[in-house]
Amino acid sequence: MQLTPIGTIRSPFPSEEGMPIQPSGAWNAVGEVVVDAAYAEGLADVEGFSHIILLYWFHRVEGYSLTVRPFLEERSRGLFATRAPRRPNPIGLSVVQLIERRDTVLRIRGVDVVDGTPLLDIKPYVPAFDAPEKARAGWLEGKAERSETWTADDRFVEKT
Amino acid sequence: MQLTPIGTIRSPFPSEEGMPIQPSGAWNAVGEVVVDAAYAEGLADVEGFSHIILLYWFHRVEGYSLTVRPFLEERSRGLFATRAPRRPNPIGLSVVQLIERRDTVLRIRGVDVVDGTPLLDIKPYVPAFDAPEKARAGWLEGKAERSETWTADDRFVEKT
Repeated sequence: MQLTPIGTIRSPFPSEEGMPIQPSGAWNAVGEVVVDAAYAEGLADVEGFSHIILLYWFHRVEGYSLTVRPFLEERSRGLFATRAPRRPNPIGLSVVQLIERRDTVLRIRGVDVVDGTPLLDIKPYVPAFDAPEKARAGWLEGKAERSETWTADDRFVEKT
Repeated sequence: MQLTPIGTIRSPFPSEEGMPIQPSGAWNAVGEVVVDAAYAEGLADVEGFSHIILLYWFHRVEGYSLTVRPFLEERSRGLFATRAPRRPNPIGLSVVQLIERRDTVLRIRGVDVVDGTPLLDIKPYVPAFDAPEKARAGWLEGKAERSETWTADDRFVEKT
Protein backbone atom coordinates (compact mmCIF):
# COMPACT_ATOMS: atom_id res chain seq x y z
CA MET A 1 0.00 0.00 0.00
CA GLN A 2 2.16 2.71 -1.37
CA LEU A 3 0.90 6.18 -2.25
CA THR A 4 2.02 8.53 -5.00
CA PRO A 5 1.12 12.23 -4.88
CA ILE A 6 -0.90 13.27 -7.94
CA GLY A 7 -0.44 16.99 -7.37
CA THR A 8 -0.09 19.73 -4.79
CA ILE A 9 -2.53 21.89 -2.85
CA ARG A 10 -1.62 25.58 -2.82
CA SER A 11 -3.05 27.68 0.01
CA PRO A 12 -2.43 31.05 1.65
CA PHE A 13 -1.09 29.25 4.74
CA PRO A 14 2.65 28.62 4.92
CA SER A 15 2.26 26.77 8.22
CA GLU A 16 -0.33 25.51 10.66
CA GLU A 17 0.06 28.61 12.82
CA GLY A 18 -2.97 30.83 12.45
CA MET A 19 -4.48 28.70 9.68
CA PRO A 20 -8.26 28.65 10.03
CA ILE A 21 -10.05 25.34 9.84
CA GLN A 22 -13.32 24.60 8.18
CA PRO A 23 -15.98 25.74 8.36
CA SER A 24 -16.43 29.40 8.87
CA GLY A 25 -19.14 31.74 7.70
CA ALA A 26 -16.59 34.52 7.57
CA TRP A 27 -13.72 32.57 6.20
CA ASN A 28 -13.33 31.99 2.52
CA ALA A 29 -9.71 31.16 1.86
CA VAL A 30 -9.08 30.53 -1.81
CA GLY A 31 -6.45 28.12 -2.98
CA GLU A 32 -5.53 25.91 -5.88
CA VAL A 33 -5.26 22.24 -6.54
CA VAL A 34 -2.42 21.81 -9.03
CA VAL A 35 -2.70 18.37 -10.59
CA ASP A 36 0.30 16.79 -12.32
CA ALA A 37 0.00 16.91 -16.10
CA ALA A 38 0.12 13.11 -16.30
CA TYR A 39 -3.38 12.99 -14.76
CA ALA A 40 -4.95 15.77 -16.86
CA GLU A 41 -7.35 13.48 -18.71
CA GLY A 42 -8.89 12.33 -15.43
CA LEU A 43 -10.11 15.86 -14.64
CA ALA A 44 -12.71 15.92 -17.41
CA ASP A 45 -16.23 16.62 -16.09
CA VAL A 46 -14.98 17.67 -12.65
CA GLU A 47 -16.07 21.25 -13.35
CA GLY A 48 -19.72 20.16 -13.25
CA PHE A 49 -19.50 19.61 -9.51
CA SER A 50 -19.88 22.51 -7.11
CA HIS A 51 -17.85 20.73 -4.44
CA ILE A 52 -15.07 18.18 -4.44
CA ILE A 53 -13.53 15.96 -1.79
CA LEU A 54 -9.78 16.27 -1.46
CA LEU A 55 -7.74 13.48 0.07
CA TYR A 56 -4.21 14.55 0.97
CA TRP A 57 -1.20 13.61 3.04
CA PHE A 58 -0.56 15.38 6.35
CA HIS A 59 3.09 15.77 5.40
CA ARG A 60 4.12 17.88 8.34
CA VAL A 61 3.16 15.52 11.12
CA GLU A 62 4.94 12.53 12.51
CA GLY A 63 3.61 9.68 14.58
CA TYR A 64 0.21 9.68 16.21
CA SER A 65 -1.60 9.74 19.53
CA LEU A 66 -4.67 7.65 20.24
CA THR A 67 -6.06 10.36 22.50
CA VAL A 68 -6.08 14.08 21.83
CA ARG A 69 -7.35 17.07 23.76
CA PRO A 70 -9.14 19.39 21.34
CA PHE A 71 -8.99 23.16 21.62
CA LEU A 72 -11.11 24.63 24.41
CA GLU A 73 -12.06 21.17 25.60
CA GLU A 74 -11.38 20.03 29.12
CA ARG A 75 -11.30 16.34 28.41
CA SER A 76 -9.42 14.32 25.88
CA ARG A 77 -11.14 12.37 23.09
CA GLY A 78 -10.37 9.23 21.16
CA LEU A 79 -8.39 10.03 18.02
CA PHE A 80 -10.99 8.47 15.71
CA ALA A 81 -13.63 10.80 17.17
CA THR A 82 -11.54 13.78 16.01
CA ARG A 83 -10.11 15.15 12.78
CA ALA A 84 -6.62 15.60 14.26
CA PRO A 85 -3.87 15.04 11.66
CA ARG A 86 -1.57 12.81 13.67
CA ARG A 87 -3.18 9.47 12.76
CA PRO A 88 -1.88 5.97 12.02
CA ASN A 89 -2.49 6.75 8.34
CA PRO A 90 -2.17 10.55 8.16
CA ILE A 91 -4.66 11.09 5.34
CA GLY A 92 -6.61 14.33 5.44
CA LEU A 93 -10.07 14.91 3.97
CA SER A 94 -11.62 18.26 3.08
CA VAL A 95 -14.81 19.09 1.25
CA VAL A 96 -14.12 22.30 -0.68
CA GLN A 97 -16.02 24.44 -3.15
CA LEU A 98 -14.80 24.20 -6.73
CA ILE A 99 -14.71 27.70 -8.22
CA GLU A 100 -13.35 26.80 -11.63
CA ARG A 101 -11.05 24.50 -13.52
CA ARG A 102 -8.35 25.83 -15.80
CA ASP A 103 -6.79 22.83 -17.43
CA THR A 104 -5.02 21.01 -14.57
CA VAL A 105 -5.53 23.74 -11.98
CA LEU A 106 -8.65 23.78 -9.81
CA ARG A 107 -9.45 27.00 -7.98
CA ILE A 108 -11.09 26.15 -4.68
CA ARG A 109 -12.68 27.92 -1.75
CA GLY A 110 -12.53 26.70 1.79
CA VAL A 111 -9.00 25.38 1.74
CA ASP A 112 -7.82 24.44 5.22
CA VAL A 113 -4.46 22.85 4.53
CA VAL A 114 -0.88 24.02 4.60
CA ASP A 115 0.56 25.33 1.31
CA GLY A 116 2.38 22.56 -0.53
CA THR A 117 0.32 19.69 0.87
CA PRO A 118 0.64 16.57 -1.33
CA LEU A 119 -2.62 15.66 -3.07
CA LEU A 120 -3.65 11.99 -3.11
CA ASP A 121 -7.09 11.96 -4.69
CA ILE A 122 -10.00 14.07 -5.90
CA LYS A 123 -13.54 12.70 -5.65
CA PRO A 124 -16.74 14.42 -6.73
CA TYR A 125 -18.90 15.44 -3.78
CA VAL A 126 -22.30 13.81 -4.30
CA PRO A 127 -24.97 14.71 -1.72
CA ALA A 128 -26.82 11.43 -2.29
CA PHE A 129 -23.67 9.52 -1.31
CA ASP A 130 -22.02 11.87 1.13
CA ALA A 131 -24.71 13.76 3.05
CA PRO A 132 -26.84 11.64 5.40
CA GLU A 133 -30.17 13.25 6.16
CA LYS A 134 -29.89 13.52 9.89
CA ALA A 135 -26.48 13.35 11.44
CA ARG A 136 -25.49 13.76 15.09
CA ALA A 137 -22.00 15.10 15.64
CA GLY A 138 -21.16 13.58 19.01
CA TRP A 139 -18.92 15.73 21.21
CA LEU A 140 -18.62 18.18 18.29
CA GLU A 141 -22.38 18.82 18.18
CA GLY A 142 -22.95 22.56 18.23
CA LYS A 143 -19.22 23.16 18.52
CA ALA A 144 -18.11 22.58 14.95
CA GLU A 145 -20.34 25.45 13.84
CA ARG A 146 -18.31 27.78 16.00
CA SER A 147 -15.03 26.68 14.54
CA GLU A 148 -14.51 29.99 12.77
CA THR A 149 -12.73 30.96 15.95
CA TRP A 150 -10.45 27.95 15.76
CA THR A 151 -7.16 27.77 13.99
CA ALA A 152 -5.37 24.72 12.76
CA ASP A 153 -2.93 24.82 15.65
CA ASP A 154 -5.85 23.53 17.63
CA ARG A 155 -5.99 20.38 15.62
CA PHE A 156 -2.31 19.82 16.09
CA VAL A 157 -2.81 19.11 19.73
CA GLU A 158 -0.52 17.27 22.03
CA LYS A 159 -1.09 13.85 23.42
CA THR A 160 -2.78 14.18 26.80
CA MET B 1 3.93 7.52 2.12
CA GLN B 2 3.30 4.06 3.36
CA LEU B 3 -0.03 2.86 4.71
CA THR B 4 -0.80 0.34 7.42
CA PRO B 5 -4.26 -1.20 7.75
CA ILE B 6 -5.78 -0.49 11.17
CA GLY B 7 -8.53 -3.08 10.83
CA THR B 8 -10.90 -4.80 8.45
CA ILE B 9 -14.37 -4.04 7.12
CA ARG B 10 -16.76 -7.02 7.22
CA SER B 11 -19.71 -6.96 4.86
CA PRO B 12 -22.27 -9.38 3.39
CA PHE B 13 -20.55 -9.09 0.00
CA PRO B 14 -17.87 -11.65 -0.81
CA SER B 15 -17.18 -9.95 -4.15
CA GLU B 16 -18.12 -6.94 -6.25
CA GLU B 17 -20.71 -8.96 -8.18
CA GLY B 18 -24.17 -7.95 -7.13
CA MET B 19 -22.94 -5.70 -4.35
CA PRO B 20 -25.21 -2.67 -4.07
CA ILE B 21 -23.64 0.75 -3.82
CA GLN B 22 -24.71 3.67 -1.73
CA PRO B 23 -27.19 5.12 -1.39
CA SER B 24 -30.43 3.24 -1.45
CA GLY B 25 -33.68 3.87 0.28
CA ALA B 26 -34.41 0.18 0.21
CA TRP B 27 -30.93 -1.02 0.91
CA ASN B 28 -29.62 -1.27 4.41
CA ALA B 29 -26.71 -3.67 4.39
CA VAL B 30 -25.25 -4.07 7.84
CA GLY B 31 -21.58 -4.76 8.36
CA GLU B 32 -18.83 -4.37 10.90
CA VAL B 33 -15.66 -2.40 11.22
CA VAL B 34 -13.25 -4.57 13.16
CA VAL B 35 -10.44 -2.39 14.48
CA ASP B 36 -7.16 -3.92 15.55
CA ALA B 37 -6.81 -4.07 19.34
CA ALA B 38 -3.71 -1.86 19.19
CA TYR B 39 -5.93 1.10 18.26
CA ALA B 40 -8.72 0.48 20.79
CA GLU B 41 -8.03 3.61 22.83
CA GLY B 42 -8.56 5.77 19.74
CA LEU B 43 -12.20 4.65 19.45
CA ALA B 44 -13.34 6.44 22.60
CA ASP B 45 -16.21 8.88 21.94
CA VAL B 46 -16.83 7.56 18.42
CA GLU B 47 -20.19 6.18 19.57
CA GLY B 48 -21.52 9.70 19.98
CA PHE B 49 -21.56 10.17 16.22
CA SER B 50 -24.46 8.91 14.15
CA HIS B 51 -22.28 8.61 11.06
CA ILE B 52 -18.62 7.98 10.40
CA ILE B 53 -16.39 8.33 7.38
CA LEU B 54 -14.45 5.20 6.47
CA LEU B 55 -11.28 5.40 4.41
CA TYR B 56 -10.18 2.05 3.04
CA TRP B 57 -8.00 0.42 0.45
CA PHE B 58 -9.54 -0.92 -2.78
CA HIS B 59 -7.53 -4.10 -2.39
CA ARG B 60 -9.07 -5.97 -5.29
CA VAL B 61 -8.22 -3.54 -8.04
CA GLU B 62 -5.02 -3.02 -9.95
CA GLY B 63 -3.90 -0.07 -12.02
CA TYR B 64 -6.17 2.74 -13.06
CA SER B 65 -7.84 4.38 -16.04
CA LEU B 66 -8.11 8.14 -16.40
CA THR B 67 -11.45 7.78 -18.18
CA VAL B 68 -14.30 5.47 -17.20
CA ARG B 69 -17.71 4.78 -18.65
CA PRO B 70 -20.21 4.58 -15.80
CA PHE B 71 -23.14 2.17 -15.78
CA LEU B 72 -26.02 3.19 -18.05
CA GLU B 73 -24.04 6.14 -19.37
CA GLU B 74 -23.31 6.58 -23.01
CA ARG B 75 -20.25 8.70 -22.67
CA SER B 76 -17.12 8.27 -20.63
CA ARG B 77 -16.17 10.58 -17.79
CA GLY B 78 -12.92 11.74 -16.26
CA LEU B 79 -11.87 9.45 -13.43
CA PHE B 80 -11.80 12.27 -10.86
CA ALA B 81 -15.44 13.05 -11.67
CA THR B 82 -16.37 9.49 -10.63
CA ARG B 83 -16.06 7.27 -7.57
CA ALA B 84 -14.59 4.36 -9.53
CA PRO B 85 -12.11 2.30 -7.49
CA ARG B 86 -9.30 2.04 -10.02
CA ARG B 87 -7.47 5.26 -9.12
CA PRO B 88 -3.81 6.32 -8.89
CA ASN B 89 -4.21 6.03 -5.11
CA PRO B 90 -6.99 3.45 -4.67
CA ILE B 91 -8.43 4.86 -1.47
CA GLY B 92 -12.17 4.44 -0.97
CA LEU B 93 -14.43 6.69 1.08
CA SER B 94 -17.85 5.81 2.46
CA VAL B 95 -20.10 7.67 4.86
CA VAL B 96 -21.91 5.02 6.90
CA GLN B 97 -24.34 5.01 9.78
CA LEU B 98 -22.86 3.92 13.09
CA ILE B 99 -25.32 1.58 14.81
CA GLU B 100 -23.26 0.78 17.88
CA ARG B 101 -19.77 0.24 19.19
CA ARG B 102 -18.85 -2.89 21.09
CA ASP B 103 -15.27 -2.44 22.21
CA THR B 104 -13.26 -2.49 18.98
CA VAL B 105 -16.13 -3.55 16.73
CA LEU B 106 -18.37 -0.93 15.11
CA ARG B 107 -21.67 -2.12 13.69
CA ILE B 108 -22.50 -0.03 10.64
CA ARG B 109 -25.33 0.36 8.16
CA GLY B 110 -24.86 1.27 4.52
CA VAL B 111 -21.71 -0.71 3.92
CA ASP B 112 -20.82 -0.79 0.22
CA VAL B 113 -17.47 -2.54 0.24
CA VAL B 114 -16.28 -6.07 -0.30
CA ASP B 115 -15.93 -8.27 2.78
CA GLY B 116 -12.37 -8.14 4.08
CA THR B 117 -11.55 -4.65 2.82
CA PRO B 118 -8.54 -3.19 4.68
CA LEU B 119 -9.47 -0.20 6.84
CA LEU B 120 -7.17 2.85 6.76
CA ASP B 121 -8.93 5.45 8.88
CA ILE B 122 -12.13 6.37 10.70
CA LYS B 123 -13.18 10.01 10.91
CA PRO B 124 -16.28 11.41 12.62
CA TYR B 125 -18.84 12.71 10.15
CA VAL B 126 -19.48 16.34 11.09
CA PRO B 127 -22.20 18.10 9.07
CA ALA B 128 -20.63 21.51 9.65
CA PHE B 129 -17.40 20.29 8.04
CA ASP B 130 -18.67 17.75 5.54
CA ALA B 131 -22.05 18.88 4.24
CA PRO B 132 -22.01 22.04 2.11
CA GLU B 133 -25.38 23.76 2.02
CA LYS B 134 -26.03 23.66 -1.67
CA ALA B 135 -24.13 21.20 -3.75
CA ARG B 136 -24.46 20.45 -7.45
CA ALA B 137 -23.56 16.92 -8.47
CA GLY B 138 -22.40 17.46 -12.06
CA TRP B 139 -23.13 14.54 -14.38
CA LEU B 140 -24.39 12.58 -11.36
CA GLU B 141 -27.11 15.14 -10.58
CA GLY B 142 -30.41 13.30 -10.28
CA LYS B 143 -28.72 10.01 -11.09
CA ALA B 144 -27.03 9.21 -7.82
CA GLU B 145 -30.44 9.13 -6.12
CA ARG B 146 -31.43 6.26 -8.37
CA SER B 147 -28.37 4.24 -7.53
CA GLU B 148 -30.40 1.65 -5.61
CA THR B 149 -30.62 -0.07 -8.95
CA TRP B 150 -26.87 -0.06 -9.37
CA THR B 151 -24.50 -2.67 -8.19
CA ALA B 152 -20.83 -2.33 -7.53
CA ASP B 153 -19.94 -4.10 -10.75
CA ASP B 154 -20.98 -0.86 -12.35
CA ARG B 155 -18.24 1.02 -10.60
CA PHE B 156 -15.70 -1.51 -11.70
CA VAL B 157 -16.00 -0.41 -15.26
CA GLU B 158 -13.56 -0.94 -18.05
CA LYS B 159 -11.40 1.73 -19.58
CA THR B 160 -13.19 3.17 -22.58
